[in-house]
Amino acid sequence: MTSSFDREMMQHCINLARQAAGKTSPNPMVGAVIVKDGQVIGEGFHPKAGQPHAEVFALKQAAEQAKGATIYISLEPCNHYGRTPPCTEALIEAQVNKVVIGMIDPDPRVSGSGVKRLQEAGIEVVVGVEEDACRRLNEGFIHRVLSKKPFGILKYAMTLDGKIATTSGHSAWITGEASRRLVHHLRASCDAVIIGGNTVRQDNPHLTSHGVSSHNPLRVVMSRSLNLPLEAHLWETSQVPTLVFTQEGMNPALQKQLLKRQVEVIELKSLSPSEVMHHLYERGFSSVLWECGGILAARAIAEGMVQKVMAFIAPKIIGGNTAPSPVGDLGLEKMTEALQLEKVTFHQIENDFVIEGYLING
Amino acid sequence: MTSSFDREMMQHCINLARQAAGKTSPNPMVGAVIVKDGQVIGEGFHPKAGQPHAEVFALKQAAEQAKGATIYISLEPCNHYGRTPPCTEALIEAQVNKVVIGMIDPDPRVSGSGVKRLQEAGIEVVVGVEEDACRRLNEGFIHRVLSKKPFGILKYAMTLDGKIATTSGHSAWITGEASRRLVHHLRASCDAVIIGGNTVRQDNPHLTSHGVSSHNPLRVVMSRSLNLPLEAHLWETSQVPTLVFTQEGMNPALQKQLLKRQVEVIELKSLSPSEVMHHLYERGFSSVLWECGGILAARAIAEGMVQKVMAFIAPKIIGGNTAPSPVGDLGLEKMTEALQLEKVTFHQIENDFVIEGYLING
Repeated sequence: MTSSFDREMMQHCINLARQAAGKTSPNPMVGAVIVKDGQVIGEGFHPKAGQPHAEVFALKQAAEQAKGATIYISLEPCNHYGRTPPCTEALIEAQVNKVVIGMIDPDPRVSGSGVKRLQEAGIEVVVGVEEDACRRLNEGFIHRVLSKKPFGILKYAMTLDGKIATTSGHSAWITGEASRRLVHHLRASCDAVIIGGNTVRQDNPHLTSHGVSSHNPLRVVMSRSLNLPLEAHLWETSQVPTLVFTQEGMNPALQKQLLKRQVEVIELKSLSPSEVMHHLYERGFSSVLWECGGILAARAIAEGMVQKVMAFIAPKIIGGNTAPSPVGDLGLEKMTEALQLEKVTFHQIENDFVIEGYLING
Repeated sequence: MTSSFDREMMQHCINLARQAAGKTSPNPMVGAVIVKDGQVIGEGFHPKAGQPHAEVFALKQAAEQAKGATIYISLEPCNHYGRTPPCTEALIEAQVNKVVIGMIDPDPRVSGSGVKRLQEAGIEVVVGVEEDACRRLNEGFIHRVLSKKPFGILKYAMTLDGKIATTSGHSAWITGEASRRLVHHLRASCDAVIIGGNTVRQDNPHLTSHGVSSHNPLRVVMSRSLNLPLEAHLWETSQVPTLVFTQEGMNPALQKQLLKRQVEVIELKSLSPSEVMHHLYERGFSSVLWECGGILAARAIAEGMVQKVMAFIAPKIIGGNTAPSPVGDLGLEKMTEALQLEKVTFHQIENDFVIEGYLING
């Protein structure tokens, strides 16, 4: 039996957690709220890997009042010694009365052990309040834990006739300011954003969060040829780093120039979306945003590196038989073979529309 | 000052009028409701050109009770002798007390003359109740009257990545059943539906209203080459007629076969969307649905033959660098030149989405 108060407190946990969006990987975002006699007496969120967990901040704020209180936590408290001691022990020591948990730890090796430890200590535990929202909050983290790959989001902006640029490649701007601002927030919540060489050459993007957050994603370029311009916004790395993936031995002259500008260059034996995502996983990344053109997007989808699609649609018609569209060849011959999206949602942003959903088995 | 009762009665007029959707051209759809002491005592709609106007049916039903009553009409009553005597005279003769009108007749030559005649006869007249809805109801008729062309609606179904078919041309089906049923209703409300030769060859469509209405649009094919298959659903004309436009002198052998099957063939000196629409205007048509592929859609847009765009979007990804998209070349180089839609609305139909709007200056 969960009350609307319980749900409200869990939503508050989620909002607290989200303050660290984009900053916690490889850890999840977590928020915690301690309540006594209907009053919030402590709250906190996990700000960054290596720093204390949400529960610790909330317990510190509540101090001795935590005794006999209820704590709401968006994710099952940890029960193992990592860089910080287990939160379960802290909760037991603080003598809280009840623990309300949004979702169980997705890692099957530890899943449920925190709940068990608390119950063994005689604490009442409730699990699954606002579970869907808690899962959505950490969809990147959950995917990372379960599949050992970062969660891939393909985002594109297109006209109502399905084009991401004109026939000549011009694309500034398809959507309006409010949509673009939402994309800046989206970047701020991701660990990396990936484009291909074409996008560098055509659009010369910044790919930053444009000040909507203190966090910027790592800017990643995939370029097999490394036939990239010597001057590009992405090579300005004093504020935000850039990483270029290429094939072994490509364009050493440009590589030298890039390194001079503190652009990191990694040569892979075989440059592919899955190799790049594997590398980003090893860096501890959870959420990666694909902002590339159709050819790279198709490869990323085909290799299972895209889980979520976010289509921004502007109510305008540009036309063009050869104007690029969001997704290149997937080798599908029949319309019945199309990749279906599930859990599709829709919203309007000023004049634009956003349709988003999850690739089934993505 | 209009009351919610007035608005409700006008919506009732609109619903009555809509019962004749697709059947009234070149006349508008009109509904009328007579009310006395808060009770409906008569109602009617214009069923078809040549048959009585909505007011006549409503007055007949109300009989002598019409004296002192209020009549709601979605369009200004006519004030001239056409195939039927003027409705203004019938209203005056019936001694109604008040006339509430949705919108003034759009024809500038007669606009307002019905209101004037009623006022001169001492009848109270209110104009503009639910005017937007009344205008939407007859957007085809209004465009016909003002521009001397039928109103063109471009409808297409595409995947979320902007494709109307796979690379190989396969397109059955992009959207779900509910969307397709809505298209059948849309066809039932139109006077004609136009496709090009490619669509005949690729999809072999029926283009009927599939039984959702007794009305079917005239099925129109535009084919410059007249390189069309000898067997096609469209050549089955026992229930629904088909009209083929081509260039002078093309494929006489096929023409002969088509005529045998009662398919009408018209040769034009120069086959173009505007020539075809001019011809359909001369036939008395108000609303024409473009269900063609991208190349013909682009020509229709470029020639000003499309006023409204209805995009059905299915939440699926098909991919394809050369897969066709809804609108071919419009000669636009910069994204800033894109044709903007206005009065954009959106709704969800089962799993699909529909975004519709009006081309500015379309």
